[in-house]
Amino acid sequence: MIHPQQTSGMPFQKYAPFHEQIAVDLPDRTWPTKRIETAPRWCAVDLRDGNQALIDPMNGERKLRMFQLLVSMGYKEIEVGFPSASQTDYDFCRELIEGGHIPDDVTIQVLTQCRDHLIERTYDAIRGSKQAIVHFYNSTSALQRKVVFGLDQDGIVDIAVQGARLCKKLEETVPETDVYYEYSPESYTGTELEFAVRICNAVIDVVDPTPDHKMIVNLPATVEMATPNVYADSIEWMVRHLDRRESVVVSLHPHNDRGTGVAAAELGYLAGADRIEGCLFGNGERTGNVCLVTLGMNLFGQGIDPQIDFSDIDEVRRTVEYCNQLPVGERHPYGGDLVFTAFSGSHQDAIKKGFEAMESEAKSKDAGIDDLVWAVPYLPVDPHDLGRSYEAVVRVNSQSGKGGVAYIMKSEHQMDLPRRLQIEFSGVVQRGVDQDGGEVAPAELWSRFRDEYLPDSDRAWGRFELVNVVTDSTVDGASTIEASLRDGAGQVTVTGTGNGPIAAFVAALGTVEGAPEVRVLDYAEHALSQGGDARAAAYVECAVGERVLWGVGVDPSIVNASLKAVVSAVNRALRDA
Amino acid sequence: MIHPQQTSGMPFQKYAPFHEQIAVDLPDRTWPTKRIETAPRWCAVDLRDGNQALIDPMNGERKLRMFQLLVSMGYKEIEVGFPSASQTDYDFCRELIEGGHIPDDVTIQVLTQCRDHLIERTYDAIRGSKQAIVHFYNSTSALQRKVVFGLDQDGIVDIAVQGARLCKKLEETVPETDVYYEYSPESYTGTELEFAVRICNAVIDVVDPTPDHKMIVNLPATVEMATPNVYADSIEWMVRHLDRRESVVVSLHPHNDRGTGVAAAELGYLAGADRIEGCLFGNGERTGNVCLVTLGMNLFGQGIDPQIDFSDIDEVRRTVEYCNQLPVGERHPYGGDLVFTAFSGSHQDAIKKGFEAMESEAKSKDAGIDDLVWAVPYLPVDPHDLGRSYEAVVRVNSQSGKGGVAYIMKSEHQMDLPRRLQIEFSGVVQRGVDQDGGEVAPAELWSRFRDEYLPDSDRAWGRFELVNVVTDSTVDGASTIEASLRDGAGQVTVTGTGNGPIAAFVAALGTVEGAPEVRVLDYAEHALSQGGDARAAAYVECAVGERVLWGVGVDPSIVNASLKAVVSAVNRALRDA
Repeated sequence: MIHPQQTSGMPFQKYAPFHEQIAVDLPDRTWPTKRIETAPRWCAVDLRDGNQALIDPMNGERKLRMFQLLVSMGYKEIEVGFPSASQTDYDFCRELIEGGHIPDDVTIQVLTQCRDHLIERTYDAIRGSKQAIVHFYNSTSALQRKVVFGLDQDGIVDIAVQGARLCKKLEETVPETDVYYEYSPESYTGTELEFAVRICNAVIDVVDPTPDHKMIVNLPATVEMATPNVYADSIEWMVRHLDRRESVVVSLHPHNDRGTGVAAAELGYLAGADRIEGCLFGNGERTGNVCLVTLGMNLFGQGIDPQIDFSDIDEVRRTVEYCNQLPVGERHPYGGDLVFTAFSGSHQDAIKKGFEAMESEAKSKDAGIDDLVWAVPYLPVDPHDLGRSYEAVVRVNSQSGKGGVAYIMKSEHQMDLPRRLQIEFSGVVQRGVDQDGGEVAPAELWSRFRDEYLPDSDRAWGRFELVNVVTDSTVDGASTIEASLRDGAGQVTVTGTGNGPIAAFVAALGTVEGAPEVRVLDYAEHALSQGGDARAAAYVECAVGERVLWGVGVDPSIVNASLKAVVSAVNRALRDA
Repeated sequence: MIHPQQTSGMPFQKYAPFHEQIAVDLPDRTWPTKRIETAPRWCAVDLRDGNQALIDPMNGERKLRMFQLLVSMGYKEIEVGFPSASQTDYDFCRELIEGGHIPDDVTIQVLTQCRDHLIERTYDAIRGSKQAIVHFYNSTSALQRKVVFGLDQDGIVDIAVQGARLCKKLEETVPETDVYYEYSPESYTGTELEFAVRICNAVIDVVDPTPDHKMIVNLPATVEMATPNVYADSIEWMVRHLDRRESVVVSLHPHNDRGTGVAAAELGYLAGADRIEGCLFGNGERTGNVCLVTLGMNLFGQGIDPQIDFSDIDEVRRTVEYCNQLPVGERHPYGGDLVFTAFSGSHQDAIKKGFEAMESEAKSKDAGIDDLVWAVPYLPVDPHDLGRSYEAVVRVNSQSGKGGVAYIMKSEHQMDLPRRLQIEFSGVVQRGVDQDGGEVAPAELWSRFRDEYLPDSDRAWGRFELVNVVTDSTVDGASTIEASLRDGAGQVTVTGTGNGPIAAFVAALGTVEGAPEVRVLDYAEHALSQGGDARAAAYVECAVGERVLWGVGVDPSIVNASLKAVVSAVNRALRDA
């Protein structure tokens, strides 16, 4: 095959590749061989980086809802705002402290630029809190140094160092508060690594952290500028070159401009970072911050405790959507409407078989399903662990084969359709969908099933309807039957003999004038529920004339259910003939 | 700081980490040192994998719209359906061929399972096309072999080989069509690598591709099961072990269950793949396929021609939303509503300075902006290259500082506010937003500016209003002024002298009873447009009593504009006193 792609005509020449802007050279990297084995320290920045990027920023009430959600999920470090830049943030910070909303083991974090009056205002904001992280930053990238600040590297270092010094000095103004520090060389991804480590080490020197009272050095992908392996290389390089590593918590803060924020966080964590900042469902500037739900659940699915509770993901999502006034996308990992759906028939079939295999294994081991290793195709995690369900979100549409239909029929209607009946009924549904378009809801699925196989007397569309049956069978011998049937507008009573009631009924039916020849090919029957008043469902595969097709019958009597199934098949064959 | 995160209580123990399921061991990997330098071969699977995962699958009309969009963007390989599984897909395939919708350099691709009647139906579907890729697959993962097929490795290989043989045989039924092949070991990510390479090589042996007539081996992350570096390792391993490498196109098909589909595609491409399958804006089963827009634009932003035209991304997005009946998320890279917004004041300011620096550089080099290397903070690509704009999407809200406001004032109203006036006016806007909530639209921004600094006569709220001015100035000497002012309900005429008209006016104003003391601190003025009827905008920073604040005036006369600006500042000071 030729490869006929042509130039796009777009002005790609005006962009410099990342490696021409910033050198990241680490041929002896070790992170690709490592594995994630424990959760990082999490920091949720929904109330700051998330909030500042909202069309409709949170008011105090929405802020408090978000804070309480984050606390309830288990986040212990929560950036609550940029109090020196926004009166709303300042007021919220005061309300958290004065209203006693902060649990003892939760630390609030507040952002400030390295400017004197903003830092001073920040200490006013945290006064009275038990502990707080003062997160100060200045922008360090080559581009921002040149076009925004007009300063050389020394000038930029001076901003950070002066900021750190003022912070240390202002500690005395908040004697009740145990103050920790976080420093971010903002626009880190556009900063030469040598300069990034220089400015971080200069700040570390001023803050003077100890192993018992660490400081956080946060290395943000303020703008995601390269593939995530390059970010990981840069993090490993920084981790090797930062001073007092034992007293420093290395933190990541990935954005998602290239759609690889989750990967950047994971690979950066492999590269030696300790902590990750992000937002629930990836809210934040532009394309958002890295999604904390995805990161946490990715750990969970690898058998690692995320140390965050996602067990009611729908409630998390509802609260986030309320606070942010932005919807969570249909395909957002773990939380989107469609992520536990399977539309394709082969997927649905495999999922059904996966569930069944787990059930069998549990039974054979006398164990619960949750005691087994999760292993269901196309479902990387058990939706139940998130308070969701595969059943509730199954959709049956024109691409569906047999599996999804079968699963709903079984889970919602206790009808355990034989495999070939699954296929046949999927075809019935699929033809209907192809004509009408759209999805088939479970309720509609059941309605289609009844209309096709189990028409009520009220709306019976078939030629025959079973009215009364008398059977007489000899043990180990032949059965005889006398069956009364509605036949169109009239009624007939016929008799027959065979090696069982079904065979006898088929023989009897053969005596009706104009009735087709019927052969029974396959048969299955099960109780629909437990107890004395249980009804039975019977499935009979018949050759009726040239056609092979299924009939279904439901009746308290297992015999009548079977005979109704034969009638169902015959009626369908006659209708289609 | 203690690290008080606690166990989530979630049943993480029931999940086996990926490395306990599948061994991927490649300590001598080379991909992390490589760089992407050219676009891969793209294959758009929106009409198949995307469509099959829609709540409301596309009808023929929507399918054709999608096909034509993909063709117009430059995609040359387009998977158009699963014709043997869906009558709609079959009919669409026939319509494409019989309706002459397929350009000569575009190859349609059709998916089929390795089952005889499905393969036969597939050849019926492609009959008459100039060329086509028959994409056959069977599932190969350890889990699916066990729970879905109940077959050992030999049995699974046999399915693939038999399918390949039947395909080869059926070529004779479509003599007009140049048939190419793609084979996918479906659920590749859950397949032991040794087995994956065994089955692929067995298929390659049957298909017998040549360097001039290659076949495609597609290695799908049917379910994303590990961090993307592990997928890349597996791809590099496969590339080393596949037979007839020179006759095989290695293709990736990442899904996004862990939110790292883009990264998997990029790292897998570094690892030696040639081709990537995905969907526009990441439609597809569950969390979707990898997003082709993100992948293509990621190349573009690195100075690499994506060979796909994204220059009218809004039109692409509208068509995709119409065809899929699913919205593109607000933060979706490159296409989302909010991805070229900057809410934070410091971001807005930096963006403004970035634009200005580029304009200066262009001017000094006598070049166009597009001839320069793009370098604007927080905007990884120029929104104009996508047919979007930063201006149109700037939003000003309670987190805003000065930059965004300034940019809109300049770009939409030609008002080039001095830096400190930017800050002051941002405060005006921010206070309004904090009270009202919500964003400030550009139109409202302008309305707020006028109300604050430039009230019309109709709704003038200030004590003073300039009515008439007579100036008399000696060259290199003093200026005298006679100014008529509305003063509340009355009118006054005052005179003054100074070293220029502003000083003279301030002196004159000082003679009005009860007028505050005014000192002019800063002053700027520029034409609002070019030509003889141009008006001037004047900005004057004044100390009025204790306060320092700005006034603004607009008038055809540069003198009157300045004096109006002084009046504006005085009125604001008196209002707030």
